[in-house]
Order: sequence, then structure tokens, then C-alpha cells
Amino acid sequence: MIRLRRSQAVAGLTTERITAFSDGVFSIAITLLVLNLRVPIVLSSKLPGELLKQSPSLLSYLLSFVIVGIYWIAHHNMFHYIKRSDRPFLWINILLLMCVAFIPFPAGLLGQYPTQSISVIIYASSLILTNLMLSLLWWYATSNHRLVDQDTDPHFVRTVNRRNMTAPVVYLVSIGLSFLSPLASLIVFFLFPCITSSQAT
Amino acid sequence: MIRLRRSQAVAGLTTERITAFSDGVFSIAITLLVLNLRVPIVLSSKLPGELLKQSPSLLSYLLSFVIVGIYWIAHHNMFHYIKRSDRPFLWINILLLMCVAFIPFPAGLLGQYPTQSISVIIYASSLILTNLMLSLLWWYATSNHRLVDQDTDPHFVRTVNRRNMTAPVVYLVSIGLSFLSPLASLIVFFLFPCITSSQAT
Amino acid sequence: MIRLRRSQAVAGLTTERITAFSDGVFSIAITLLVLNLRVPIVLSSKLPGELLKQSPSLLSYLLSFVIVGIYWIAHHNMFHYIKRSDRPFLWINILLLMCVAFIPFPAGLLGQYPTQSISVIIYASSLILTNLMLSLLWWYATSNHRLVDQDTDPHFVRTVNRRNMTAPVVYLVSIGLSFLSPLASLIVFFLFPCITSSQAT
Amino acid sequence: MIRLRRSQAVAGLTTERITAFSDGVFSIAITLLVLNLRVPIVLSSKLPGELLKQSPSLLSYLLSFVIVGIYWIAHHNMFHYIKRSDRPFLWINILLLMCVAFIPFPAGLLGQYPTQSISVIIYASSLILTNLMLSLLWWYATSNHRLVDQDTDPHFVRTVNRRNMTAPVVYLVSIGLSFLSPLASLIVFFLFPCITSSQAT
Repeated sequence: MIRLRRSQAVAGLTTERITAFSDGVFSIAITLLVLNLRVPIVLSSKLPGELLKQSPSLLSYLLSFVIVGIYWIAHHNMFHYIKRSDRPFLWINILLLMCVAFIPFPAGLLGQYPTQSISVIIYASSLILTNLMLSLLWWYATSNHRLVDQDTDPHFVRTVNRRNMTAPVVYLVSIGLSFLSPLASLIVFFLFPCITSSQAT
Repeated sequence: MIRLRRSQAVAGLTTERITAFSDGVFSIAITLLVLNLRVPIVLSSKLPGELLKQSPSLLSYLLSFVIVGIYWIAHHNMFHYIKRSDRPFLWINILLLMCVAFIPFPAGLLGQYPTQSISVIIYASSLILTNLMLSLLWWYATSNHRLVDQDTDPHFVRTVNRRNMTAPVVYLVSIGLSFLSPLASLIVFFLFPCITSSQAT
Repeated sequence: MIRLRRSQAVAGLTTERITAFSDGVFSIAITLLVLNLRVPIVLSSKLPGELLKQSPSLLSYLLSFVIVGIYWIAHHNMFHYIKRSDRPFLWINILLLMCVAFIPFPAGLLGQYPTQSISVIIYASSLILTNLMLSLLWWYATSNHRLVDQDTDPHFVRTVNRRNMTAPVVYLVSIGLSFLSPLASLIVFFLFPCITSSQAT
Repeated sequence: MIRLRRSQAVAGLTTERITAFSDGVFSIAITLLVLNLRVPIVLSSKLPGELLKQSPSLLSYLLSFVIVGIYWIAHHNMFHYIKRSDRPFLWINILLLMCVAFIPFPAGLLGQYPTQSISVIIYASSLILTNLMLSLLWWYATSNHRLVDQDTDPHFVRTVNRRNMTAPVVYLVSIGLSFLSPLASLIVFFLFPCITSSQAT
């Protein structure tokens, strides 16, 4: 029985350290976004004009902060149900974090070149990848109740699985749109999180 | 009863991860402030002079560190009382963190252009926004005892609500002052945290 | 007996704060890797070409993220077994973190100069050092059951000790290879983590 | 009695979040040190020479990492004994963190200008300030057993108080030395942590 208790403690520590490490990466990536805004080094008279030029970077900051926030909430909610961990799960989580930690780069690119298709494509692609990793994480953890409790509502599991697949489709559409009009695809970027976040997770 | 205990554990985890993520963003934002101080690349003979030119950046570092510190203490104190979490609360907290994580940018701007109205306005505006989000967070959590215990002192709740609204007013005044004299508004910035932090929270 | 309980609590706090601090350094170092990717400031027409030039930096990001991830998992697994802490252990851990926090620099160097022997040598050397510190940490903690429980499987301890020594040898070989062909040593860098991570830890 | 238990829980949370926030700042500050090492953008043939020029920055990285590590261990050890928290304590801790988070700047300065008195003076001064805040934190927490348990060994408290005052004296001496020879004061910087860390804390 002491054996049992110890293994429970170890398993508890495991998801605790995974969430601690993940929260670390999420919170650093989300805070590094601000580094894409640069204090211009110009004559004082030109300062207002130079700051106005940074407005796409500011919009990219706001958008990307909300999107990383959505990812964090989704991750947070998944770990309400995930009770154990194994090696492949650890690796899927690290690949997810690799996508999340990457976001400051496409966010900076989108802020610098908001009307170029290529920056929209790179931005959307990195979000699609992040969503796919998030879906994979949940699918791996829940299939056959691998890492969740037996009494986890199967309807809930399927709902999350389905919802996870919406975002990649929307981002793919926004990539297609970017060839017609980069602006149109940016509007999709902005509307989508607003709609998603008003739904339950 | 096992059911009850489990839901308590889950609720506990929730605010725990929210504070972990928030502490992450607060501590990163506060530490990134130092990146606004740049090691000058000059001839050794010009080094002391170049370093002196960074003194506004140093003052901005000290001021912004104290202000973010005040925000963190206020957040910390609120979560003494907040016991549960829901979706809108999670989002208000993320918007608050978006304001906090943004502060290194206006702090850098103020350090670079301490005597320009525009940098004072942007700095003060971002502090006002942060204060408003902090007030919204507390108001949302406490109205109808939504996320706090029933026995939370209503007098205390009102006091915090009222105090939260002082800062935006002071910062608005400092914006007005910046049109007369940027220096005067900077003095307000420095005096206000000193007065606030000497009171109880 | 109260004495005993208290010292257990203190010991628990110790490894908790060590892992909290370590997780902090690991998650920051791994997230800072993205700063080696720079948003190019060029004419829009030259953007795709400039982004292509960053592909070695992207590969270095992916590689280094996976490698730091492996280190974190190894550290994570060791602390499943390490129950206590003492002063030399604390210092070995800090020296290990010094190596981990250093990795963004050689990673940036490798991304910028992927075909130069010197960047391969510096990259491989810093990984060798990190591996040696990780081995030292485990050896120190486990020899004479210093900081692990008496019932830790000695076979397991030896297996980890042996596995820990594989990486430095492989990285040394990759340094040798870099004099013949930097590309060949890069392939070793990429294959090795894939093989290692598919094994148990 | 329920009242009592609750206040204990609140007090527990308090030092927990203080250490979480502090660990965050310590781990970020210590990891940001690496940003003082810059990947040179030069012709491949000049790369080895340019990297050699970075060796003072590398030494500054190693030195500063060890020194911040010593501060973290000291902080860590103090919080073994500190059981409660109050408002002035919170502020002393934030001022301490302000000093710690500042260190990447003087560390970068020392790496860039290792032989200039002014960078030695700024570096040593910021370490002196950090040590004084650390001493103040301990003195405040322990005088009249304000925030520590009644049974904390008074001999131990005095020993830490005395030890805390050694570092400022040594750093002051190193400032004096820097006027005779910056190199001599650098040697003091390097020897001192080695001696200190070999003693108990």
C-alpha cells in the first residue's frame, strides 16, 4: 500500500512538473511578443510618425497574445482531465511547446509585413501546426482512456476533439484568402478567436 | 462526498495554474524591463558620457519595476480571496496580463524620450488600462460573491474597488500635466507609487 | 518526532524549489531560442529570399529545442528519484543550468554559420559539457544512495549512468566529423536525439 | 479553529507565491545573461577572431551566473525559515528582485569593457546593493522573530546576518582596487564566490 501511495505521488509530480514547465514556456512566449515592438531611435519631431508605423506590430501583439492565451486555456483545461503521463505524451507536449515558443517570430513578421502573403502564410501555418499538436495531445491522452480517468465523459472528449479541428480549417481558409487579399485573411484571424473564446471549452 | 472533494481539488488546481501562469508573465515582464538599458558600443573614453545618457532609462526601469511590483502585489492579494474561476474571469485575467506584458515597451519609450508628451501619454495610458483591467478582475470576482467566499468582508471588497479607481484618475491627471510640463507629470508618476505602497492593500 | 516531520517538510520544500528554479531556467532557455530568428528589415520584394536564408536558423531552433527538451526530460526523470538535497548537489545543479542557459548562444551561432567547423565545435562542446554536468548530478545523487531512497533499483541507476555517457561520446565524434564535413556532423546531431528519445529514460 | 486553519492556509499561500514570483525573476535574470553574448555578423574567415573577442563576455557570463546562483541559494535558504509575510517584507523582497533583475546590464557592461574602472564600479555597486537588500530582508524577517518561528536558532540568525555583510565589504574593496588595476578587482570578483560557496549557508 505504501508502494501504491508512492507511485501516485510520483504520477502527481509528473503532471505537476509538466504543467510547471509548460506554463513557463507559455508565459515566456506570450511575454516575448512585446519585443517585436521596438522603441524607434529618431529625432523627437519624427517620433509620433514612427510610432504610428508600429501600429501593425501592436495589432499583431494583441492578436497573438489572445491566440496564445486561447492555447494556454485549452492546455489548462486538458490538464484538468489528464491525470497521468508517459513518454510519448511528454514528447507530444514538447513538440506543442516548440510550436508555441515559435509564435513570437511569425508574430513579428506579420507586424512588420502585414500586407504580404508570405507573412500571412507563415503566421497561419504556425498556428495550424500548434492546433494540430494540441489536438494530437488530447487525442493521445484520451483514446482508450490512456491518461485520463475512466469516468471522463466520452461526449466531452469527442466535443473537444471536434472543436480542436475547427481552427486548422479556418487558418487554412485564411491562407487561401491571403492570395486574394491579405487584409481579408487578417480579418479572419481577428474574428475567429473572438468567436471561439465566447464558446465554452 | 468523494465527488465534492474531487471538484474542490480541480477548483484548487484552477486558481493554482492561473496564479502560476500570471506569476510567470509578471516576473518575465518585470525582468524584461532591464533590456531597455543598452550597453553602449563606443570608444572607452566616451563610455562615462554615454552611460550618463542612459539615466532616464535607469529611472524608467526603477519606476516601472515598482509599478509592476504594485500590480503584482495587488494581484497576489486579490487571489487570497478568489477561490474559484470561470471562463470570463480567465479572459479578464489574460487581458490584464496583456497590459502587464506590454509595459516594457512604454517603459523603454519613456526612458528614451523622457521629455516628450507622447511617450508620457503612451506610458500613462498603458498604466490606466492595466488598472482598469485589475479593477474589472476584482469587480467581476466579488460581485454577488461570484468567485470569493461568502464570508468575505463586504467593506473590504468596496475599499479595494474604490482604491483601484484612484490610480486611473491620477494617471489621467498626469497625462493632462504632460501638455504643460512632461517633467511635472513624471514627478506625479514617481510620487504616486510611493504614497500608494505605504498604504495597506 | 515533530522534529523528524519538520525536517521532511524542509527537505520537500528544497527539491520543490530546486525543480521550480530549474524548470524556470529550462523553460526560459528553450523559449529564448526563438530570438535567434530575426525578422528581416528589407524591401517586400526581397522578403521571401531573406526568409529562406533563415532556414539554417530554423533548423537550429528545431534541433536545439528537441535537445533542451531531452535534457529537461532527463532532469525531470532524475528528480523522480532524488528526494533530498545538499549544498554540493545545489551547486552541480546550478552549473548544469549554466550550461543549459548558455545553449541559445551556440544555437544562434550554428544557425548563422552552419557550415563552419568552429560553430559546430562550439555547439557540440556546449552539449558535451551539459551532458557531463547531467551525469555528474545523477552520479552525485545516487552514489551511496546519498540523495535517493534506499530502495532505488541499483540496476536502473547504473543504466542511467551508462546512458548519460553515450551522448558526450557521440558529440565528440561529431566534432571530429566537422573537420571532414560540417554537414556530416550536423546529420549526427539530428539523428542522435531521434534515436535517444525513442528509447526509455 | 476553522478561522485559524484558514489563516494558516493563507499565510502558506503567501510565502508560496512570493517564492514562485522570486524564483521566476531569479531564473529569468540568470537566463537573460546569455543575451550579452552576441552572434557576430562577419565574414566566415573573421569568425574565430570575432568569437575570441567575446571571451570577456563569456567570463562575465560565468561569473554573473555563479553570483546570481549564490543569491538564489541564499534567498532559498532564508525562505526555509521565513514562515509568514507582511507588507514591508513584500516590498523589501521586490526591491531585492529589482537589484537581481538589473544584473544583466552591469554584466553586459563588464563583458564589453572589462578593463574600464567605470564598468567595474557599476558592476560592484549593483552587487553591493543586492547584498544589502538581501541582508535587510533577513534582518527584517528575523528581528523579534517577526516572520520566522520562535524556535529558530538565534546563533544561526546572527551568523547569517554577519555573513551577509562580508560581501559588500569585499565588493567595496574591489571598487577601490579597480582604480589601481581593473584586473586585480576582477580577480577578487572571481575568487570571492569560490570561497563563499565552499562555506555552509
